[in-house]
Amino acid sequence: MTPIAIYGGAGYTGRELLRILSGHPEVEVAHVTSGTHAGKWLGAVFPELLRAYPMLPFAERDAPLPEGVEVAFLCLPHGESIAAVPPLLEQGVRVIDLAADYRLNDAALYPEWYGRDHGHPELLAEAVYGLPEWHGDAIDTEVRLLANPGCYPTATLLALLPAIEAGLIKPATVVVNACSGVSGAGVRPSETTHFVHANESLKAYKVGRHQHTPEIEQLCSEIAGRPVTLSFTPHLAPMNRGIAVTATATLARKIDPEAAWELYFNRYVDAPFVHLLPAGQLPDTARVRGSNQCHLQVVVDPRTQRLVMLGAIDNLVKGAAGQAVQNLNLMMGWEETTGLLAPPLVP
Amino acid sequence: MTPIAIYGGAGYTGRELLRILSGHPEVEVAHVTSGTHAGKWLGAVFPELLRAYPMLPFAERDAPLPEGVEVAFLCLPHGESIAAVPPLLEQGVRVIDLAADYRLNDAALYPEWYGRDHGHPELLAEAVYGLPEWHGDAIDTEVRLLANPGCYPTATLLALLPAIEAGLIKPATVVVNACSGVSGAGVRPSETTHFVHANESLKAYKVGRHQHTPEIEQLCSEIAGRPVTLSFTPHLAPMNRGIAVTATATLARKIDPEAAWELYFNRYVDAPFVHLLPAGQLPDTARVRGSNQCHLQVVVDPRTQRLVMLGAIDNLVKGAAGQAVQNLNLMMGWEETTGLLAPPLVP
Amino acid sequence: MTPIAIYGGAGYTGRELLRILSGHPEVEVAHVTSGTHAGKWLGAVFPELLRAYPMLPFAERDAPLPEGVEVAFLCLPHGESIAAVPPLLEQGVRVIDLAADYRLNDAALYPEWYGRDHGHPELLAEAVYGLPEWHGDAIDTEVRLLANPGCYPTATLLALLPAIEAGLIKPATVVVNACSGVSGAGVRPSETTHFVHANESLKAYKVGRHQHTPEIEQLCSEIAGRPVTLSFTPHLAPMNRGIAVTATATLARKIDPEAAWELYFNRYVDAPFVHLLPAGQLPDTARVRGSNQCHLQVVVDPRTQRLVMLGAIDNLVKGAAGQAVQNLNLMMGWEETTGLLAPPLVP
Amino acid sequence: MTPIAIYGGAGYTGRELLRILSGHPEVEVAHVTSGTHAGKWLGAVFPELLRAYPMLPFAERDAPLPEGVEVAFLCLPHGESIAAVPPLLEQGVRVIDLAADYRLNDAALYPEWYGRDHGHPELLAEAVYGLPEWHGDAIDTEVRLLANPGCYPTATLLALLPAIEAGLIKPATVVVNACSGVSGAGVRPSETTHFVHANESLKAYKVGRHQHTPEIEQLCSEIAGRPVTLSFTPHLAPMNRGIAVTATATLARKIDPEAAWELYFNRYVDAPFVHLLPAGQLPDTARVRGSNQCHLQVVVDPRTQRLVMLGAIDNLVKGAAGQAVQNLNLMMGWEETTGLLAPPLVP
Repeated sequence: MTPIAIYGGAGYTGRELLRILSGHPEVEVAHVTSGTHAGKWLGAVFPELLRAYPMLPFAERDAPLPEGVEVAFLCLPHGESIAAVPPLLEQGVRVIDLAADYRLNDAALYPEWYGRDHGHPELLAEAVYGLPEWHGDAIDTEVRLLANPGCYPTATLLALLPAIEAGLIKPATVVVNACSGVSGAGVRPSETTHFVHANESLKAYKVGRHQHTPEIEQLCSEIAGRPVTLSFTPHLAPMNRGIAVTATATLARKIDPEAAWELYFNRYVDAPFVHLLPAGQLPDTARVRGSNQCHLQVVVDPRTQRLVMLGAIDNLVKGAAGQAVQNLNLMMGWEETTGLLAPPLVP
Repeated sequence: MTPIAIYGGAGYTGRELLRILSGHPEVEVAHVTSGTHAGKWLGAVFPELLRAYPMLPFAERDAPLPEGVEVAFLCLPHGESIAAVPPLLEQGVRVIDLAADYRLNDAALYPEWYGRDHGHPELLAEAVYGLPEWHGDAIDTEVRLLANPGCYPTATLLALLPAIEAGLIKPATVVVNACSGVSGAGVRPSETTHFVHANESLKAYKVGRHQHTPEIEQLCSEIAGRPVTLSFTPHLAPMNRGIAVTATATLARKIDPEAAWELYFNRYVDAPFVHLLPAGQLPDTARVRGSNQCHLQVVVDPRTQRLVMLGAIDNLVKGAAGQAVQNLNLMMGWEETTGLLAPPLVP
Repeated sequence: MTPIAIYGGAGYTGRELLRILSGHPEVEVAHVTSGTHAGKWLGAVFPELLRAYPMLPFAERDAPLPEGVEVAFLCLPHGESIAAVPPLLEQGVRVIDLAADYRLNDAALYPEWYGRDHGHPELLAEAVYGLPEWHGDAIDTEVRLLANPGCYPTATLLALLPAIEAGLIKPATVVVNACSGVSGAGVRPSETTHFVHANESLKAYKVGRHQHTPEIEQLCSEIAGRPVTLSFTPHLAPMNRGIAVTATATLARKIDPEAAWELYFNRYVDAPFVHLLPAGQLPDTARVRGSNQCHLQVVVDPRTQRLVMLGAIDNLVKGAAGQAVQNLNLMMGWEETTGLLAPPLVP
Repeated sequence: MTPIAIYGGAGYTGRELLRILSGHPEVEVAHVTSGTHAGKWLGAVFPELLRAYPMLPFAERDAPLPEGVEVAFLCLPHGESIAAVPPLLEQGVRVIDLAADYRLNDAALYPEWYGRDHGHPELLAEAVYGLPEWHGDAIDTEVRLLANPGCYPTATLLALLPAIEAGLIKPATVVVNACSGVSGAGVRPSETTHFVHANESLKAYKVGRHQHTPEIEQLCSEIAGRPVTLSFTPHLAPMNRGIAVTATATLARKIDPEAAWELYFNRYVDAPFVHLLPAGQLPDTARVRGSNQCHLQVVVDPRTQRLVMLGAIDNLVKGAAGQAVQNLNLMMGWEETTGLLAPPLVP
């Protein structure tokens, strides 16, 4: 059993990591921190995890790591990973950061989108962006610092990239709309996350300025081989989990629906967590809940000569903790699907 | 009191019409039909309406109209209004059709989008499309046949048309995404509307082929002065009521955010049900529930040189029964807001 | 138009009062306070009320009352009405208190259930408990201080009291279970009211110690003519509005189902807001939403010789603001239903 | 791997069984039937199970069983198991019936509660009621026919039985209220299960006559050693999964809260799926979702001298498919928790 640590174990992504890792045959959670709950038993705070972690207490953030911890997952609030990473690397601990702090290659983008300079730009070149279906070769046993993708980027990129890679769409015409469950807004109570406000509510937010936009553009640009600027509009939907993405773009060339479907099918045929649905079925957040699966569909609209690319994931799993475990598996040289094969919880 | 009739009073739009009209000071519901409930008291089927209509029974569809009925609302399944309209007009009864059957001017579009020929194309030229904020002058005391707009078109057009009218956007670049509550799927139980499937579910449907698309394009083309083809992708969201629309289009010219906001503000300053929200606020289905209000916002995205136009309505009110009453008011020469001023039910 | 004031207009009950009073033909809201929003326009904080109150600002709690205000509604946090009432009465303003502060006759109950002494026990004898269906004669134009009932007590008492009054059940055997929507937990964000925690969650709380218990027992004792102690267990359900009450008690004598139904029917035949449903139908929170209606049913269980009494209300309307307006109507000598006849919002 | 069969694999309990068994290390699903989907691949109907069962088709109900199947799970509509069991037993296949058809010992109860005679009363004596925490010793490798308990009975009995066994409460005073998620109403679309009706709706149903009542009474009587008759009122709550039970009864003797808590704690200390929560915490359906856990709490109300016993389970897991697998484990002599240790999906 490989001992690992989780920093920030009481937020939604940390808690989800604890849930998933409880069934991972190679991993032992040796250390978990929480600013709020330090000193309490994990099972007293989260009764659903009592059986899985009967004797694990929450530690302070700055408590010393137990001997032998090989990998640390950082589930800290955005911005706090920047300073937390270097000391861990110095101790020889490999880091999987679930925050946005090491995802963008270009240090100049941090002040623009996150409102502050990046304190350790020298590490950005080393950080590997952990979207295994597209960066799989780079995620190996040598990686020291892995930037786990955001929830919106994961769903959006899995839906968009095959068409961009194949030159099927004009990247400058891409319009992405996405709907997220409320867990995406985080564990902190607020007016936005109050049940009575979120229930029966569907609304856009951060129009034209969501901080996941440059992360999406970075990968699209990389695959397209030239800079891509796109529109991304997130929405909040009255559900706990799930992201549904609808990306629309003008076709760069004619293609019939079957050929588009096959292009996507072939691109992901070996990806264990990406399922292109049978033609006619459309992705549904309810069908991926609790699992690391991503469901995709691609529709050719002959009337508008546009391609509509649709994807659904569980934002806390494939959009966060599950993908982090997938990356862990690759970084440790284990089977990519280890601990991640539980089917979605339907209904 | 003007006696009116409702055909199809047991579906969601008919029931909503009954709710709204119970507080209308000029109207008496003299006749209401239901295939399913004919012969029962309205209040026995819908206990929430018992107090408002203590003595009104459901009639058969083909029961004779009571003397003196001046206006009939048709809340029949799509396709059934086509044949129902002519006999009513012949009796001198004015008709407000809440179905799609008389909305499209071009008879050729019916087989394409609705799968059948229109049986009475000769009436299409006479039918007035009832979007008062854009066709207000045409909705007057002379109208015999009014086609009440669909729910998606109402929200989409109110959001899009000011920018099209002002030449602010390139119509060929318009991409519309919309999310609807489940009442939009109708009263008939199905797998789609089963609670356990719809709950926690966000999914697109009828991608590239929703039958409201030509209705949206018809108005856009009319205002643009040339044919407009656009992308429209509807989604189902886990809530009872509400439509949220996000329309994205490339700017035809530079504009600063304040000027775009003012353009919209001025366009709707006299529209009693359309509220452009203060800059920074975004439309939310939860804020219009149960009311005839439409909330709008317009955002300039300088990075992509696109305009994002957002709108929210209650699909059963401004998207159906409320707008029908607004049209009734105009057709009868009454104050446009009569019976429609109750604020949204928040929360 | 009678000018009235609302203290605490930004919580759920105050906001609901503003919604309801916007359609009341005799009332003008002349003054509304909010600690949080003082100085802002009401319509800027609550866009759904912009049209109804275009020019009304939120005032500070201690701002002077405008001239001529006759009645003040207190929607303050529990405990804060105690001190707020006397100065208003001294100014000649009549008070309707929506908090629990003047509901219990016995001053000794306040420290036991609310954790503090009552600062003005001398006013308890004067305060009239405003459950019009049971205290209607006492709610007249002479009342200076009206204690508006709690949401759980309203639903519970309307369901229980006819059976107690008729000696049909043994009061000592009464077990009450109730489920409330999340708006009952108040507007303040907390872990309990976080969407992600409340959604898909059904749980009891404050078992054996909810502060509405003595209020229920006070009325039951009064009607029974001797002290009644009962079990009351509240639950939180994943919905915005609504309270469903199920009260179970041992029959004191044999009765057939029709006779029990008739007893209830006759008791409420003149109560405009209480509807005993047809035999076989059961109360449903979804059928009373947004209205001042209370739906009831009574079931005889011959197997256990128990009576099951069921009720449903909207906790914010008949359980708070709507009942307060009903009481206002009685206190002003207006028709009891004035401004309260809008049907429930279904669906 | 032990080959098993599932009859009725497309309803909620069958589908949940497929989900759970996909992670069971000792079991291979060799055969699954569906009247609706016979001939289709399982993964084409349920995309979330595609990865787990890539090559399994749905068979007709009367298709021959593959060689070697040792156990059959029956997830058929209530009433259909009666005739399905005998031929399976004759083939030497052991049966776990998830319907109600073999749960009641007394054949006379079937016409009373299920509206028809039991066709095979001779098998009732052999059938073992599979509540492992109470009938564990009887569930062994000899059992041929196991009646898997209902969802309401499981939650209710786990909450009630320790107090009854200890003589702590007067059985004749027991009042049980329970709330269930909509999946409990089954997969068939109906007005009751329509999203728009079930959402925001809390309502009782089948008051005094729910068919799970005699099943609850049978076990209570067995443990009490004399006939127990109790009140059971089920409610439908707007959520997918979960049952919350609140049982209230008069104490038979004084007990302090700590002693009551300890009595429950000791009773279940060895039960791997039953967790008595720390004092002060209350069961919540959201904390058991997707797992085989049952959370309990017990509260002494000194004011009324009553005991309040509270429980929460996932109706599809501990209330159906999970408990069936727990029973399978016991019947095969495997570790009781095999395949059932995944923590709840929170949030």
